[in-house]
Amino acid sequence: MSESKGPIPGPVFNPVWLSDIKFDDKGLVTAVAVDHANGDVLMLAHMNAEALRLTLETGRMTYWSRSRKSLWVKGESSGNTQKLISAHLDCDGDALVFRIVQEGAGAACHEGYRSCFSRKFENGKWMRQGKPVVPQESP
Amino acid sequence: MSESKGPIPGPVFNPVWLSDIKFDDKGLVTAVAVDHANGDVLMLAHMNAEALRLTLETGRMTYWSRSRKSLWVKGESSGNTQKLISAHLDCDGDALVFRIVQEGAGAACHEGYRSCFSRKFENGKWMRQGKPVVPQESP
Repeated sequence: MSESKGPIPGPVFNPVWLSDIKFDDKGLVTAVAVDHANGDVLMLAHMNAEALRLTLETGRMTYWSRSRKSLWVKGESSGNTQKLISAHLDCDGDALVFRIVQEGAGAACHEGYRSCFSRKFENGKWMRQGKPVVPQESP
Repeated sequence: MSESKGPIPGPVFNPVWLSDIKFDDKGLVTAVAVDHANGDVLMLAHMNAEALRLTLETGRMTYWSRSRKSLWVKGESSGNTQKLISAHLDCDGDALVFRIVQEGAGAACHEGYRSCFSRKFENGKWMRQGKPVVPQESP
Protein backbone atom coordinates (compact mmCIF):
# COMPACT_ATOMS: atom_id res chain seq x y z
CA MET A 1 0.00 0.00 0.00
CA SER A 2 1.33 3.43 -0.86
CA GLU A 3 -1.51 5.67 0.23
CA SER A 4 -0.59 9.10 1.49
CA LYS A 5 -1.03 9.73 5.20
CA GLY A 6 -0.55 13.47 4.78
CA PRO A 7 -3.19 16.16 5.02
CA ILE A 8 -3.43 16.40 1.24
CA PRO A 9 -4.51 13.48 -0.93
CA GLY A 10 -1.75 12.50 -3.31
CA PRO A 11 1.35 10.35 -3.52
CA VAL A 12 3.84 12.62 -1.74
CA PHE A 13 3.27 16.08 -0.38
CA ASN A 14 5.51 17.29 2.35
CA PRO A 15 7.12 20.58 1.40
CA VAL A 16 9.26 22.47 3.91
CA TRP A 17 6.73 25.29 4.23
CA LEU A 18 3.96 22.93 5.34
CA SER A 19 5.71 21.91 8.56
CA ASP A 20 5.50 25.45 9.96
CA ILE A 21 1.71 25.61 9.60
CA LYS A 22 -0.39 24.66 12.61
CA PHE A 23 -3.77 23.56 11.36
CA ASP A 24 -6.62 23.49 13.88
CA ASP A 25 -8.68 20.45 14.80
CA LYS A 26 -10.65 20.92 11.57
CA GLY A 27 -7.48 21.10 9.47
CA LEU A 28 -7.81 24.83 8.88
CA VAL A 29 -5.82 28.02 9.33
CA THR A 30 -7.13 31.58 9.27
CA ALA A 31 -6.38 33.61 6.16
CA VAL A 32 -6.54 37.41 6.02
CA ALA A 33 -6.50 39.04 2.59
CA VAL A 34 -5.08 42.54 2.51
CA ASP A 35 -5.18 45.01 -0.37
CA HIS A 36 -1.60 45.33 -1.59
CA ALA A 37 -2.30 48.84 -2.83
CA ASN A 38 -3.22 50.40 0.50
CA GLY A 39 -3.06 47.73 3.22
CA ASP A 40 -6.81 47.62 3.83
CA VAL A 41 -8.09 44.32 5.20
CA LEU A 42 -10.47 43.00 2.54
CA MET A 43 -11.67 39.67 3.92
CA LEU A 44 -11.02 36.89 6.38
CA ALA A 45 -11.50 33.25 5.43
CA HIS A 46 -9.95 29.84 6.03
CA MET A 47 -7.64 27.46 4.23
CA ASN A 48 -6.85 23.81 4.50
CA ALA A 49 -3.47 22.52 3.34
CA GLU A 50 -4.67 22.02 -0.22
CA ALA A 51 -6.09 25.54 -0.47
CA LEU A 52 -2.81 26.94 0.82
CA ARG A 53 -0.78 24.83 -1.60
CA LEU A 54 -2.91 25.97 -4.53
CA THR A 55 -2.66 29.59 -3.44
CA LEU A 56 1.13 29.46 -3.19
CA GLU A 57 1.57 27.48 -6.40
CA THR A 58 -0.92 29.23 -8.65
CA GLY A 59 -0.73 32.74 -7.21
CA ARG A 60 -4.52 32.81 -7.16
CA MET A 61 -6.19 33.06 -3.75
CA THR A 62 -7.90 29.77 -2.96
CA TYR A 63 -9.79 29.21 0.28
CA TRP A 64 -11.71 26.42 1.96
CA SER A 65 -15.40 27.19 2.17
CA ARG A 66 -16.59 25.96 5.56
CA SER A 67 -20.23 26.30 4.54
CA ARG A 68 -19.88 24.47 1.22
CA LYS A 69 -17.12 22.17 2.50
CA SER A 70 -15.14 22.58 -0.70
CA LEU A 71 -12.19 24.39 -2.19
CA TRP A 72 -13.09 27.88 -3.30
CA VAL A 73 -11.04 29.70 -5.89
CA LYS A 74 -12.02 33.21 -4.95
CA GLY A 75 -13.84 34.96 -7.79
CA GLU A 76 -14.03 31.88 -9.98
CA SER A 77 -17.70 32.51 -10.64
CA SER A 78 -17.90 36.27 -10.09
CA GLY A 79 -14.67 37.28 -11.80
CA ASN A 80 -13.49 39.03 -8.63
CA THR A 81 -10.34 36.95 -8.43
CA GLN A 82 -7.43 37.77 -6.12
CA LYS A 83 -3.83 37.74 -7.30
CA LEU A 84 -1.29 36.82 -4.64
CA ILE A 85 1.56 39.27 -4.07
CA SER A 86 3.07 37.93 -0.83
CA ALA A 87 2.23 35.54 2.02
CA HIS A 88 3.05 36.07 5.69
CA LEU A 89 2.85 33.60 8.58
CA ASP A 90 2.30 34.55 12.21
CA CYS A 91 4.31 33.50 15.26
CA ASP A 92 1.86 30.77 16.22
CA GLY A 93 1.78 29.37 12.71
CA ASP A 94 -2.02 29.31 12.65
CA ALA A 95 -2.81 32.54 10.81
CA LEU A 96 -1.70 33.93 7.49
CA VAL A 97 -1.81 37.37 5.91
CA PHE A 98 -1.85 37.59 2.14
CA ARG A 99 -1.16 40.80 0.29
CA ILE A 100 -3.22 40.61 -2.87
CA VAL A 101 -4.47 42.53 -5.87
CA GLN A 102 -8.25 42.44 -5.97
CA GLU A 103 -9.19 41.89 -9.59
CA GLY A 104 -12.48 41.98 -11.46
CA ALA A 105 -14.87 44.67 -10.32
CA GLY A 106 -12.83 45.15 -7.16
CA ALA A 107 -15.25 43.60 -4.68
CA ALA A 108 -13.74 41.19 -2.18
CA CYS A 109 -17.08 40.89 -0.38
CA HIS A 110 -19.91 38.70 -1.65
CA GLU A 111 -22.24 41.56 -0.77
CA GLY A 112 -20.55 43.66 -3.44
CA TYR A 113 -18.47 45.83 -1.12
CA ARG A 114 -14.79 46.38 -1.69
CA SER A 115 -14.06 44.99 1.79
CA CYS A 116 -16.04 42.57 3.91
CA PHE A 117 -15.33 44.85 6.88
CA SER A 118 -17.72 47.56 5.75
CA ARG A 119 -19.47 48.03 9.10
CA LYS A 120 -17.89 50.39 11.61
CA PHE A 121 -18.71 50.71 15.30
CA GLU A 122 -20.30 54.12 15.81
CA ASN A 123 -22.53 55.27 18.66
CA GLY A 124 -23.11 51.74 19.88
CA LYS A 125 -24.03 50.24 16.51
CA TRP A 126 -22.33 48.69 13.51
CA MET A 127 -22.89 51.29 10.80
CA ARG A 128 -22.41 50.50 7.13
CA GLN A 129 -19.71 52.60 5.49
CA GLY A 130 -19.73 53.49 1.81
CA LYS A 131 -21.55 51.80 -1.06
CA PRO A 132 -21.10 48.47 -2.83
CA VAL A 133 -18.80 48.66 -5.83
CA VAL A 134 -20.89 46.06 -7.60
CA PRO A 135 -24.42 44.75 -7.13
CA GLN A 136 -24.85 41.46 -5.26
CA GLU A 137 -22.47 38.80 -6.46
CA SER A 138 -21.91 35.21 -5.55
CA PRO A 139 -18.58 34.53 -3.85
CA MET B 1 -33.73 33.56 40.62
CA SER B 2 -32.35 36.39 38.56
CA GLU B 3 -29.28 34.82 37.01
CA SER B 4 -28.25 36.08 33.60
CA LYS B 5 -28.71 33.68 30.70
CA GLY B 6 -26.64 35.85 28.36
CA PRO B 7 -23.13 35.20 27.14
CA ILE B 8 -21.71 37.61 29.71
CA PRO B 9 -22.16 37.13 33.45
CA GLY B 10 -24.09 40.00 34.94
CA PRO B 11 -27.60 41.21 35.56
CA VAL B 12 -28.47 42.56 32.09
CA PHE B 13 -26.23 42.75 29.08
CA ASN B 14 -27.84 42.93 25.69
CA PRO B 15 -26.59 45.96 23.79
CA VAL B 16 -27.62 46.52 20.18
CA TRP B 17 -24.12 45.86 18.87
CA LEU B 18 -23.98 42.38 20.39
CA SER B 19 -26.81 41.00 18.26
CA ASP B 20 -24.78 41.48 15.06
CA ILE B 21 -21.91 39.32 16.29
CA LYS B 22 -21.90 35.64 15.38
CA PHE B 23 -19.84 33.81 17.95
CA ASP B 24 -18.60 30.34 17.04
CA ASP B 25 -19.35 27.14 18.94
CA LYS B 26 -16.72 28.15 21.50
CA GLY B 27 -18.24 31.61 21.96
CA LEU B 28 -15.45 33.36 20.07
CA VAL B 29 -14.94 35.68 17.13
CA THR B 30 -11.71 36.36 15.28
CA ALA B 31 -10.04 39.69 15.96
CA VAL B 32 -7.45 41.27 13.67
CA ALA B 33 -5.42 44.17 15.05
CA VAL B 34 -4.16 46.61 12.44
CA ASP B 35 -1.66 49.43 12.95
CA HIS B 36 -3.64 52.65 12.56
CA ALA B 37 -0.53 54.47 11.40
CA ASN B 38 0.17 52.40 8.30
CA GLY B 39 -2.46 49.64 8.03
CA ASP B 40 -0.06 46.79 8.76
CA VAL B 41 -1.67 43.71 10.26
CA LEU B 42 -0.06 43.31 13.69
CA MET B 43 -1.74 40.26 15.19
CA LEU B 44 -4.70 37.93 15.05
CA ALA B 45 -6.41 36.73 18.18
CA HIS B 46 -9.88 35.90 19.50
CA MET B 47 -12.53 37.54 21.63
CA ASN B 48 -15.51 36.35 23.56
CA ALA B 49 -18.39 38.73 24.24
CA GLU B 50 -16.83 40.01 27.44
CA ALA B 51 -13.49 40.76 25.76
CA LEU B 52 -15.30 42.61 23.00
CA ARG B 53 -17.38 44.59 25.48
CA LEU B 54 -14.30 45.58 27.46
CA THR B 55 -12.47 46.54 24.27
CA LEU B 56 -15.31 48.77 23.09
CA GLU B 57 -15.97 50.29 26.50
CA THR B 58 -12.41 50.87 27.71
CA GLY B 59 -10.71 51.54 24.37
CA ARG B 60 -8.00 49.09 25.39
CA MET B 61 -7.65 45.94 23.29
CA THR B 62 -8.77 42.95 25.33
CA TYR B 63 -8.73 39.43 23.95
CA TRP B 64 -9.64 35.94 25.09
CA SER B 65 -6.60 33.76 25.53
CA ARG B 66 -7.52 30.31 24.25
CA SER B 67 -4.43 28.76 25.83
CA ARG B 68 -4.90 30.36 29.24
CA LYS B 69 -8.69 30.35 29.01
CA SER B 70 -8.91 33.84 30.44
CA LEU B 71 -9.42 37.45 29.49
CA TRP B 72 -6.22 39.04 28.29
CA VAL B 73 -5.74 42.79 28.39
CA LYS B 74 -3.05 43.03 25.75
CA GLY B 75 0.17 44.42 27.18
CA GLU B 76 -1.03 44.41 30.76
CA SER B 77 2.17 42.75 31.90
CA SER B 78 4.57 43.85 29.15
CA GLY B 79 3.41 47.44 28.77
CA ASN B 80 2.78 46.88 25.07
CA THR B 81 -0.84 47.91 25.32
CA GLN B 82 -3.05 48.63 22.33
CA LYS B 83 -5.30 51.69 22.13
CA LEU B 84 -8.44 51.23 20.10
CA ILE B 85 -9.06 53.72 17.29
CA SER B 86 -11.93 52.06 15.41
CA ALA B 87 -13.70 48.69 15.18
CA HIS B 88 -15.01 47.09 11.98
CA LEU B 89 -17.30 44.06 11.57
CA ASP B 90 -17.34 41.78 8.54
CA CYS B 91 -20.32 40.67 6.45
CA ASP B 92 -20.63 37.33 8.25
CA GLY B 93 -20.44 38.96 11.68
CA ASP B 94 -17.77 36.52 12.85
CA ALA B 95 -14.61 38.55 12.31
CA LEU B 96 -13.53 41.99 13.46
CA VAL B 97 -10.80 44.36 12.39
CA PHE B 98 -9.53 46.84 14.95
CA ARG B 99 -7.42 49.83 14.00
CA ILE B 100 -5.15 50.45 16.96
CA VAL B 101 -2.17 52.37 18.22
CA GLN B 102 0.48 49.96 19.44
CA GLU B 103 1.83 51.47 22.65
CA GLY B 104 4.79 50.59 24.89
CA ALA B 105 7.87 49.44 23.03
CA GLY B 106 5.83 48.93 19.88
CA ALA B 107 5.83 45.14 19.83
CA ALA B 108 2.48 43.49 19.15
CA CYS B 109 4.14 40.07 19.05
CA HIS B 110 5.09 38.15 22.16
CA GLU B 111 8.34 37.28 20.40
CA GLY B 112 9.26 40.96 20.43
CA TYR B 113 8.52 41.71 16.80
CA ARG B 114 6.42 44.68 15.77
CA SER B 115 4.00 42.33 13.99
CA CYS B 116 3.23 38.68 14.61
CA PHE B 117 3.32 38.20 10.83
CA SER B 118 7.09 38.52 10.60
CA ARG B 119 7.67 35.45 8.42
CA LYS B 120 7.32 35.84 4.67
CA PHE B 121 7.04 33.09 2.09
CA GLU B 122 10.22 33.16 0.01
CA ASN B 123 11.72 30.39 -2.11
CA GLY B 124 9.53 27.74 -0.55
CA LYS B 125 10.18 28.68 3.08
CA TRP B 126 8.84 31.07 5.70
CA MET B 127 11.69 33.53 6.12
CA ARG B 128 11.90 35.87 9.10
CA GLN B 129 11.81 39.53 8.12
CA GLY B 130 13.47 42.24 10.19
CA LYS B 131 14.51 42.20 13.83
CA PRO B 132 12.57 42.24 17.10
CA VAL B 133 11.92 45.73 18.42
CA VAL B 134 12.24 44.43 21.99
CA PRO B 135 13.77 41.31 23.50
CA GLN B 136 11.40 38.44 24.41
CA GLU B 137 8.35 39.64 26.26
CA SER B 138 5.39 37.91 27.75
CA PRO B 139 2.11 38.72 26.02
